[in-house]
Amino acid sequence: MLSRTSHDRMANAIRFLAMDAVEAANSGHPGLPMGAADIATVLFTKVLKYDPTRPFWPDRDRFVLSAGHGSMLLYSVLHLAGYEKVTIEEIKRFRKLGSLTPGHPENFVTEGIETTTGPLGQGIATAVGMAMAERALAARFGKDVVDHHTFVLCSDGDLMEGISQEAADLAGHLKLSKLIVMWDDNGISIDGATSISGSTDQLARFAASGWATTRIDGHDPDAILAALTAAKASDRPTLIACRTVIGFGSPKKAGSEKVHGSPLGADEIAATRAALGWEAAPFEIPADVLAGWRAAGAAGSAARAAWEARLAAAPEADRAEFERRIAGTLPQALEGAIVAVKQKAVADGGAVATRKSSELVLDFITPVVPEMLGGSADLTGSNNTKAKGAKAITPDDFAGSFVHWGVREHGMAAAMNGITLHKGLIPFSGGFLVFSDYCRPSIRLAALMGERVIHVLTHDSIGLGEDGPTHQPVEHLAALRAIPNLLVMRPADTVETAECWQIALQSEGRPSALILSRQNLPILRTDATAENRSAGGAYEIVAASAKAQASLFATGSEVSLAVEAAKLLEAQGVPTRVVSIPSFELFLERPAAERAKVIGDAPAKVAVEAAIRMGWDAIVGSDAAFVGMTSFGASAPGKDLFAHFGLTPDKVAAKALDQLRQV
Amino acid sequence: MLSRTSHDRMANAIRFLAMDAVEAANSGHPGLPMGAADIATVLFTKVLKYDPTRPFWPDRDRFVLSAGHGSMLLYSVLHLAGYEKVTIEEIKRFRKLGSLTPGHPENFVTEGIETTTGPLGQGIATAVGMAMAERALAARFGKDVVDHHTFVLCSDGDLMEGISQEAADLAGHLKLSKLIVMWDDNGISIDGATSISGSTDQLARFAASGWATTRIDGHDPDAILAALTAAKASDRPTLIACRTVIGFGSPKKAGSEKVHGSPLGADEIAATRAALGWEAAPFEIPADVLAGWRAAGAAGSAARAAWEARLAAAPEADRAEFERRIAGTLPQALEGAIVAVKQKAVADGGAVATRKSSELVLDFITPVVPEMLGGSADLTGSNNTKAKGAKAITPDDFAGSFVHWGVREHGMAAAMNGITLHKGLIPFSGGFLVFSDYCRPSIRLAALMGERVIHVLTHDSIGLGEDGPTHQPVEHLAALRAIPNLLVMRPADTVETAECWQIALQSEGRPSALILSRQNLPILRTDATAENRSAGGAYEIVAASAKAQASLFATGSEVSLAVEAAKLLEAQGVPTRVVSIPSFELFLERPAAERAKVIGDAPAKVAVEAAIRMGWDAIVGSDAAFVGMTSFGASAPGKDLFAHFGLTPDKVAAKALDQLRQV
Repeated sequence: MLSRTSHDRMANAIRFLAMDAVEAANSGHPGLPMGAADIATVLFTKVLKYDPTRPFWPDRDRFVLSAGHGSMLLYSVLHLAGYEKVTIEEIKRFRKLGSLTPGHPENFVTEGIETTTGPLGQGIATAVGMAMAERALAARFGKDVVDHHTFVLCSDGDLMEGISQEAADLAGHLKLSKLIVMWDDNGISIDGATSISGSTDQLARFAASGWATTRIDGHDPDAILAALTAAKASDRPTLIACRTVIGFGSPKKAGSEKVHGSPLGADEIAATRAALGWEAAPFEIPADVLAGWRAAGAAGSAARAAWEARLAAAPEADRAEFERRIAGTLPQALEGAIVAVKQKAVADGGAVATRKSSELVLDFITPVVPEMLGGSADLTGSNNTKAKGAKAITPDDFAGSFVHWGVREHGMAAAMNGITLHKGLIPFSGGFLVFSDYCRPSIRLAALMGERVIHVLTHDSIGLGEDGPTHQPVEHLAALRAIPNLLVMRPADTVETAECWQIALQSEGRPSALILSRQNLPILRTDATAENRSAGGAYEIVAASAKAQASLFATGSEVSLAVEAAKLLEAQGVPTRVVSIPSFELFLERPAAERAKVIGDAPAKVAVEAAIRMGWDAIVGSDAAFVGMTSFGASAPGKDLFAHFGLTPDKVAAKALDQLRQV
Repeated sequence: MLSRTSHDRMANAIRFLAMDAVEAANSGHPGLPMGAADIATVLFTKVLKYDPTRPFWPDRDRFVLSAGHGSMLLYSVLHLAGYEKVTIEEIKRFRKLGSLTPGHPENFVTEGIETTTGPLGQGIATAVGMAMAERALAARFGKDVVDHHTFVLCSDGDLMEGISQEAADLAGHLKLSKLIVMWDDNGISIDGATSISGSTDQLARFAASGWATTRIDGHDPDAILAALTAAKASDRPTLIACRTVIGFGSPKKAGSEKVHGSPLGADEIAATRAALGWEAAPFEIPADVLAGWRAAGAAGSAARAAWEARLAAAPEADRAEFERRIAGTLPQALEGAIVAVKQKAVADGGAVATRKSSELVLDFITPVVPEMLGGSADLTGSNNTKAKGAKAITPDDFAGSFVHWGVREHGMAAAMNGITLHKGLIPFSGGFLVFSDYCRPSIRLAALMGERVIHVLTHDSIGLGEDGPTHQPVEHLAALRAIPNLLVMRPADTVETAECWQIALQSEGRPSALILSRQNLPILRTDATAENRSAGGAYEIVAASAKAQASLFATGSEVSLAVEAAKLLEAQGVPTRVVSIPSFELFLERPAAERAKVIGDAPAKVAVEAAIRMGWDAIVGSDAAFVGMTSFGASAPGKDLFAHFGLTPDKVAAKALDQLRQV
């Protein structure tokens, strides 16, 4: 046990680094680091398994600061424990352009940060995914190779967000006993006491979802250690309510919302120095304190070395497979499986919904890409994300490759982020496209972090029919395409679906959204080779009979509609080509000259998509005509809706003829 | 008490209408109507205060079918109880184009439907807003005028969605004792038994948030009536877990997910007819059953007449004010208040953040528009949505005009929908623009329903600075503009902010999003008249010194940037005009000729917005240049970020000169 004096001084080092950095930045959140410093000190000196010299050691414990605004807590600890890149100079550059210490923790910027947090509730739900990944990999590779805990520090705000309930439901149901959430229970939110906006008994709520719960004094190191020790021994996930004082140590501001998100000011910092007996200058850490911290940080190397020895002793095939998975390298057999599914699709012919095409792809590729972990938000039979033979994971058996997420899109998407951040698995989900709105904050974070999660989003337009406008996406393609670094792909048939799956899997640095139809679509592509024609984002799928007078552009289910329109135009003597555009992003990343060639110079240009026009001008120009949606949909059979909203080959052909008349 | 036989036959009428309509449509969800028919029968014949001849009677009880997929339950009841527009012919047209019986209940289509549901969790959270509105209006007008209950029927899926927790938190905290949620606890979701994806003890969860809870047999009419009666007497909101059998009555499919979302098939319907002893032909209701239902429906007219008498007896000023509010008519004094705030802004001058401008507007208008009910998702001081003198509502005092929503954006937005649907109040929120993602499903529903809710979304770009990319909107303007019928407004200074508030309030048939800056902006408009120049969506805010060679287009904080760029260009001899575009939607609704005039014919066109380009081509054409964002932001002071990402007057001027060189 740390002596109380030693503990206090080590915790105070966090407090003053946080106070001083926020003061220097003239912006930031000192309240949480000051209040939770005792918790972090006990965790990082007595409990957490980590090695500052190997930030990416696979079997490290994970720590997620769900309350990302308290980033200075994390930066302070990383610096003190010895993460060498987090220098005192970087701490001085808190919140400055290009620093390793941005306003909220960004895992893609700073080693030692496990995930990007700040949007409340995301951290706790992401940690659920990390803990799931640990269970799943332990089931595959054994406890000698995979055996670690996931710790979360969350705030009142994290627990107010609805996603916290989805996360709690999942973790309790799946018995994620190695997930331990420390709630910085300081009773203060930005608007004041939390009692002005809520009265929930959080311990009772989590207990209702199958969690172990306990309440401690968050400033008592013995109590913190005892609670964490008990939590590690629990057979359930644990919520530890740590009663703390926000801004602990500040004589005038502690316990008040005033210390949450603003610098304390020079006078109050001086007063806090006096109150806590801290004599070191700003950004200076007394040698004994730093030595204590560095010793604690260095202690983890033994555990890491022992793990390396265990891994080295594992069967060679297991070790190689584990290392392949952690590295994120795909099996070579994937490419053959993609060609095989294309060949089968072309041979079978017929009309098939792309959600069914996707299922076929999964049947072929999941046997050769065992790191794929599928799932659905209670729409398994509709999303077609459960491959043949896939077994669902259960609370007591994580050997499966499918997750029944329940009607929890947001918790699912955040947990998927955690699964991919953990390394070793490639998560893919199932949901309706319209309900991507429910998990948009997590999809955005995946894009920001550059993580390979794959969202399978089916029922992608009014084509879904009778369920009506609440279920019919109209603006969602545009809204998803708007997210930087998100790859949105809408394949037109089975061959394109296979190609888009291949692209998604090979895009290690970005998330993908696969947008799939409910309704059947004819097979358009009859080539089934290793060439991935979708990879360029757009390509001519039907050539004109002579020099093209009209170019038709479409995605997904509207490509076959455009092909029908082209036939009408050709029958009227208008040479017409059709361009399929499975992905705007991939197309727009190509050089302008290549793009111009694909777009062509036909005098008539018409784009077709059962969605709003927004985003299309970047592809076809604002002079092109567009056939699509300008309003919400309606409830009726899908075919009736296509006719009602003017999405027909006739209308597309008429638009092209209009354009030719105007030339 | 209904005799059991009579009750059973009345409930079976619901079951067979649902079964037969789904069969005829060859699509739909029979399971819930069959399982919950007993609940609905007791509620609509014994408990609910309603009058089918006056669907909009203000003091009616509200009934929300949160599990909107069970729409045939509602259509059946409305038909049986005597809502005259819901004819048997309409029931036969279930899920057909243009029917009054779409796949999910749509309040803007069918009288008797209180809100549009289908996206799970929305109904229960919307109902929280209805119950809040009831409390607030009762506090203002007294129980003689406002005294009714809000009933919800929700499904397992509703309770899996995180928004249900935000709703439960709020309702329990605010002691919404007149909110009664009946949970159709059938243990089945689409993927199978709910136990495959969750283990939460829902009663314990709701109890943890301050609800009264009870569990009953949902097929026992006496138990249902007793539970509802007890709930009405409770001093807390009540959750009644009604244990039911999904698809009750179907010999082969009851109790299974097979009956959730597909027609039963002719054979199984025949078997169910036999099992339940139902001899009437499809869509035929035995005369005694219909008479029983119609009598129950007609019984409500006495309560309605009594209420009308009470309203007539109320003080004349109260009655007139109540009727004005229910009608949604704005006070005439609003216009004067808008002019007054403009005049003050122009007189004061100086630089002010538009979030502060908005606060000033609220200080002027809330005293004359007492139906405004503000709030913030725990960002009151940052969103500036609490007007001078505004008092927060508390669990025991609803006389206030402000809601501390807590960190519950989704629950807030859905409750706001309920508040406006209730009639009598105009809700406006406060949140950060980036977190509009958290409540997007509810914003979308407001747009679909055409409801006047006003979302104040501040911290609208990288200009917010140090909090970094998790907090900096980049794609959110585009993503919100993508939603049909949502009015997105981004004012440039205090005068425009006042005008945008006026537009939002006057837009009774659509929601608005007011997009406001964190950082200070100079005042640009010096006219302060009754004319609302923002109402056309775009207008020339700075004229060129001669025939314009360059037109600069911008919104919000970038208008002043464009004005600076125009000065640079003018200094180089390039006559340059600046067009401010507070709203794309309003601009695009104008005739093409008017729009062309505003856009002008200057050879150089440059648009500027601290966001992605998506959406701009519809305004300025794809030949215009654009200065904006192509990636996520970063953590640094806002000014540094504008420079880093090239959002400077220099860069804008350079783009214009580039364009002129290309001419």
